[in-house]
Amino acid sequence: MAVYTEVTDEALAAFLLLYDIGRMVAFRGIAEGVENSNYALRTTEGDYILTLYEKRVNTEELPWFLGLMEHLAAQDFSCPLPVRGKNGGNLNYLSGRMASITSFLPGVWPRRVQVEHCEPLGETLAKLHLAGAGFAPRRVNALGPAGWGPLLAASLPRADEVAAGLGAELEAGLAAILAAWPEFLPTGHIHADLFPDNVFFLEGRVSGVIDFYFAATDYYAYDVAVCLNAWCFERDFSFNMTKSQALLRGYRRHRELDAAERAAMPVLAAGAAMRFLLTRLYDWLNTPDGALVTRKDPVDYLRRLRFHQAAGSAGAYGL
Amino acid sequence: MAVYTEVTDEALAAFLLLYDIGRMVAFRGIAEGVENSNYALRTTEGDYILTLYEKRVNTEELPWFLGLMEHLAAQDFSCPLPVRGKNGGNLNYLSGRMASITSFLPGVWPRRVQVEHCEPLGETLAKLHLAGAGFAPRRVNALGPAGWGPLLAASLPRADEVAAGLGAELEAGLAAILAAWPEFLPTGHIHADLFPDNVFFLEGRVSGVIDFYFAATDYYAYDVAVCLNAWCFERDFSFNMTKSQALLRGYRRHRELDAAERAAMPVLAAGAAMRFLLTRLYDWLNTPDGALVTRKDPVDYLRRLRFHQAAGSAGAYGL
Repeated sequence: MAVYTEVTDEALAAFLLLYDIGRMVAFRGIAEGVENSNYALRTTEGDYILTLYEKRVNTEELPWFLGLMEHLAAQDFSCPLPVRGKNGGNLNYLSGRMASITSFLPGVWPRRVQVEHCEPLGETLAKLHLAGAGFAPRRVNALGPAGWGPLLAASLPRADEVAAGLGAELEAGLAAILAAWPEFLPTGHIHADLFPDNVFFLEGRVSGVIDFYFAATDYYAYDVAVCLNAWCFERDFSFNMTKSQALLRGYRRHRELDAAERAAMPVLAAGAAMRFLLTRLYDWLNTPDGALVTRKDPVDYLRRLRFHQAAGSAGAYGL
Repeated sequence: MAVYTEVTDEALAAFLLLYDIGRMVAFRGIAEGVENSNYALRTTEGDYILTLYEKRVNTEELPWFLGLMEHLAAQDFSCPLPVRGKNGGNLNYLSGRMASITSFLPGVWPRRVQVEHCEPLGETLAKLHLAGAGFAPRRVNALGPAGWGPLLAASLPRADEVAAGLGAELEAGLAAILAAWPEFLPTGHIHADLFPDNVFFLEGRVSGVIDFYFAATDYYAYDVAVCLNAWCFERDFSFNMTKSQALLRGYRRHRELDAAERAAMPVLAAGAAMRFLLTRLYDWLNTPDGALVTRKDPVDYLRRLRFHQAAGSAGAYGL
């Protein structure tokens, strides 16, 4: 639910003068996206998304994210294309925030993931990895393994408020993940947050990928592991092997996973579950009552984590 | 912030088969509207708004609201036009809710009301009153004067939690309003909730009016009084006479206020302030912590109420 910053019509009109995209026709807040404020903007030239970057985003990193999106779009990967203003830049200041205008993507994100979504999703993830290869700048994954210890430490004193014994289980789990974390897997730019609400489908095909504000330079196979967590568990937290096989088949059609990547999949998947568990836990403990953000239950990811800890081998994912 | 009901893509696809508006192209939740879930829907035929009616709406009354909108649109008044499905109806069932599809209106609602908005707003209100005159069915205003006593009674035991002495002040204020409430003013269909977020502007003109789900059959001048409350107070609760004069000038250009309506304006305006104060107070005391709805401070309307109580005559509004 995401309109944190209200934009006056005068401010919007002045902002649009910085761009060459015609006059304003309509402007509506969008109830999607968690970190930033998003508006659907229609002008006499077409449809766009206006994003205001809220406080959790480090504005110094915005040029990297927008640069990656420009690079991907230039490789025919369907993602929001930042619009450059008359001054040549793709970031400007609006209502006290840095803001961008990007192209509008058609499609609908799947509220309920079906097997049929998973193979095209896997194909799209591989294409994203291949398309990003030519983008030279790198971004350290702040929410990668090196960040998980500090994140857990921040929540540990109160973790058992969420579930009895949670703190001890996470400490032991994280130690095991970090001890087994692989070195030197194939690396490049990853989305790192490719959940169903960031993938639009139209008539059975992926029509676009959005929300690159967690993207970073990290193991490709870790991005696959994020998707296994995000797309292949049912509502009762059972793991759907048919979805996993479809996702991996789609991925490997365009980018093969090597032996080291396949062997590492259980620990990568456990790490991905740990990453979402830790940020949700932190938010759960630190979101004020009455905030407009829906807190997501961290325990959902504890169930996933336990599955990966018990997985044993890549065969558990159909690899 | 309004997406309470999630719609799966399968459910949406099945729902669209009930209509003759082409295939789905895009579907996004809209962060506007308070009572219902709203989605921007694009099909191969055009743009629409999909509304799912949530629990606070009495579904038996939906045909009246949609019928009024159809009537107004047929009189060239710019409001959402309900789309009729293949079965001829404008209401269908989706994801456990009654739902409608309406036309998309261009424009932007003014986040900060300027004097320039008020004259076109007044003109639009008068046009709405005139355009509604031919619609025969009537709807009792459940949030009119007869409803205020029960509303206050529901909040009275806890009113002083919001502000010391609030309960006693509201009891005395309501008794005075009801004692002075006029009889036999010109009556017709009114919007009854014409706040800035329900009025779209485009290039200085009103491009559309939305959200008719509080509309009812009541005094036209009461609708004017609602707008005086909604459009003419500054953020510090001072009353902006220039805005009021502009609003009334615009209204009277298309529909004159007779002597009885003008004389009643102070009590009508006090009643309108009381109405919003009472529903906000009720919501304030009854909204659970952590709900996705922003609670609006009822005390904002206490400040307005006191202004109207002190107004004395229609001259206080520039009449």
